[in-house]
Amino acid sequence: MSGNRSTSGPLVTRADVETARERIDDVVHRTPLDTSRTFADLSGAASVGLKLENVQRTGSFKIRGAYNTMAQLSDAEREAGVIASSAGNHAQGVALAGQLLGIETTIVVPEVTPAAKIEATRGYGAEVVVEGDIYERSYEYAVERADETGETFVHPFDDAAIVAGQGTIGLELLEQYPDLDTVLVAIGGGGLIAGIGTVLKAHDPDIRVIGVQPEGAAHAKPSLEAGEIRQLEAVDTVAEGIADTRMLETTFEIAREVVDDVVSVSDREIAAAVALLAERAKTVAESAGAAPLAAALSDEAARDLEGEHVGVVVSGGNVNLTEHAELTRTGLHELERYADARLAVEGWPTTVGEVAETVESEGAELDVLERARRTSVDEPNRVPMTIGLEGSGRGHLEGVLESLDALEGVSVLERSLE
Amino acid sequence: MSGNRSTSGPLVTRADVETARERIDDVVHRTPLDTSRTFADLSGAASVGLKLENVQRTGSFKIRGAYNTMAQLSDAEREAGVIASSAGNHAQGVALAGQLLGIETTIVVPEVTPAAKIEATRGYGAEVVVEGDIYERSYEYAVERADETGETFVHPFDDAAIVAGQGTIGLELLEQYPDLDTVLVAIGGGGLIAGIGTVLKAHDPDIRVIGVQPEGAAHAKPSLEAGEIRQLEAVDTVAEGIADTRMLETTFEIAREVVDDVVSVSDREIAAAVALLAERAKTVAESAGAAPLAAALSDEAARDLEGEHVGVVVSGGNVNLTEHAELTRTGLHELERYADARLAVEGWPTTVGEVAETVESEGAELDVLERARRTSVDEPNRVPMTIGLEGSGRGHLEGVLESLDALEGVSVLERSLE
Repeated sequence: MSGNRSTSGPLVTRADVETARERIDDVVHRTPLDTSRTFADLSGAASVGLKLENVQRTGSFKIRGAYNTMAQLSDAEREAGVIASSAGNHAQGVALAGQLLGIETTIVVPEVTPAAKIEATRGYGAEVVVEGDIYERSYEYAVERADETGETFVHPFDDAAIVAGQGTIGLELLEQYPDLDTVLVAIGGGGLIAGIGTVLKAHDPDIRVIGVQPEGAAHAKPSLEAGEIRQLEAVDTVAEGIADTRMLETTFEIAREVVDDVVSVSDREIAAAVALLAERAKTVAESAGAAPLAAALSDEAARDLEGEHVGVVVSGGNVNLTEHAELTRTGLHELERYADARLAVEGWPTTVGEVAETVESEGAELDVLERARRTSVDEPNRVPMTIGLEGSGRGHLEGVLESLDALEGVSVLERSLE
Repeated sequence: MSGNRSTSGPLVTRADVETARERIDDVVHRTPLDTSRTFADLSGAASVGLKLENVQRTGSFKIRGAYNTMAQLSDAEREAGVIASSAGNHAQGVALAGQLLGIETTIVVPEVTPAAKIEATRGYGAEVVVEGDIYERSYEYAVERADETGETFVHPFDDAAIVAGQGTIGLELLEQYPDLDTVLVAIGGGGLIAGIGTVLKAHDPDIRVIGVQPEGAAHAKPSLEAGEIRQLEAVDTVAEGIADTRMLETTFEIAREVVDDVVSVSDREIAAAVALLAERAKTVAESAGAAPLAAALSDEAARDLEGEHVGVVVSGGNVNLTEHAELTRTGLHELERYADARLAVEGWPTTVGEVAETVESEGAELDVLERARRTSVDEPNRVPMTIGLEGSGRGHLEGVLESLDALEGVSVLERSLE
């Protein structure tokens, strides 16, 4: 996907990233690389290494770029303060960088931002200004205010210093995972993949750099194929952290040079990856952070990755707990390890005890058991019930539902996993 | 709590543990020590280091003891095979050790064991035998069968080689966390604390070794105070992994020497710790694995730990995802960050939209929104609704509920957080 480039040299070099590392080294965590065997087995890769930026300070990689950028400000710029717009991880990255560098920060957030995120940002010493019904308004407000006040606007991705900061992940990957053949990195605005790709391609052009986007925000592939930035009119994805409509000049120019391919994953595949990360790697990822693993586990990718050593960047873990719980449940559905069913029960209440006993004796978890409201499918002389079951797989759950249907006085009327 | 001991020398020495480490070093993970600042801030400790045995192979520390034990079997013993009883982490530890050592293993599980656990155990090559309505029957069956067949019975904790294997965590702690003042370790049967305590006390008798038990399975403190093993008649706790009724001879004798104190935590405190581990450390712990953090965050412990460097052993992460989701929800309740409420709504359907808008604009997450079944508290000319809200704290949630109550056509009838 490389195209025509100006001859003025790359926007960000490996040397820039190495300098960035010197700046941020005492501040950011060198996050772990988790090479559990499970995901290699599931994907067909020789090994899968999870680069766990979800345990980075502030819960995502964003502190790397923010700190690298803000550490380069002059005394006068530091005095004038920094402003940024973000309802997410960039807000906390800028706020913490400001706290560590002694720079006053202002974060502009849209009106619907969760209170927990605002408090986390304030917890790092930032002033939070609520402005705009959607993010674009917050962004415009922040840029305008920076013009007026002389504050430095720190862009979430479209800046060479931001890209160089994110690229430090690439340096760590090369040290922690020297066999690396392919890396999977999520693309929102493209700052992360631009930085990591710059380092990896400088080290070895044969390392494949694959971008991952949600199907509902898949702007990068058309842009790279067209050789110009294509903007989506709207985005629709569970992965808020990468729900961008396009790359911008800096990230696009770099991505043209360093990105080999871009794949997209469905929100359901992302949810399954969130669930598997929790279950197998015992780690909590936000949707955007799980997208690259979703790609590694997709049927299409699996063919390409066979026998390779695959780096998967888990970029962040900032997800509220009820949302994480819902994602893992959707993930279990996607993995065919959860079934909902509607039962018609005769001989209440004895029979309901038999339902619970049957589920337990077959080794499934009875997550939900409710006497349901009557609907058109229910016979008037039967009690309608809804149940939710977690099991070990489709075959197991189908067996449990068959056993329930075979119980005297129980009929399974409707069920998922059809 | 030290008492009279025989003069025959300790059952397990630091040297035994060092030998165990040589045996298991190529097989087990040296798990990370996560010293995020959050838990230090919450507990008042100078630092809190989470020893993450939940990312150990098989998802818990049990592989350490199992492998150390089984690696010492003679050729004839290996040929005869190994048997164990467990519905939990010990099963997977023994099964994987058998697979790695080329020893056939049989795991006896009680009838109600989840299919997922049986499959995981089979996945490591073990034969699984379902026998007994409760664990004690499975245990008896396994011991009897070992007598008949010549298989070696591998006890889950009451064995010097098991204790020495678990003690390797103590060696890692000393290397990873040289400032360690106090360690918090869960006690089920006591194998883990016996091993870790042996190492830490041999290194420095001033390091405090604190046992943690759930209130519903708190046998260790009365036993150590009495100077003899006390057995509970029954246990009742969410922390299945440490729901034992007593220590046994080996672990009790060692615990008398190396355990300074035992504290107990409620199931709700454990759930809060599970939630905080997911949210702040981005890590998935089972209830037993979260119990020591619950102790570190309890008001009582906080006084004792002030200014100290505190090791917290997160012993395992094997929890099914729906259970983890329920635990984190209970944890949010305990942390006063979740509220349920019942509303009476006039002017349906317009008003229900205003309810959702109000919750969102105040930065809370509307986790549940249901038109409810009518109960005795509901006025006939109002629509009853139930809502569930995640917020950033008690004050935030109370503010949201007040805003809802102030809406035209909405009354908050009942609510949690009273």
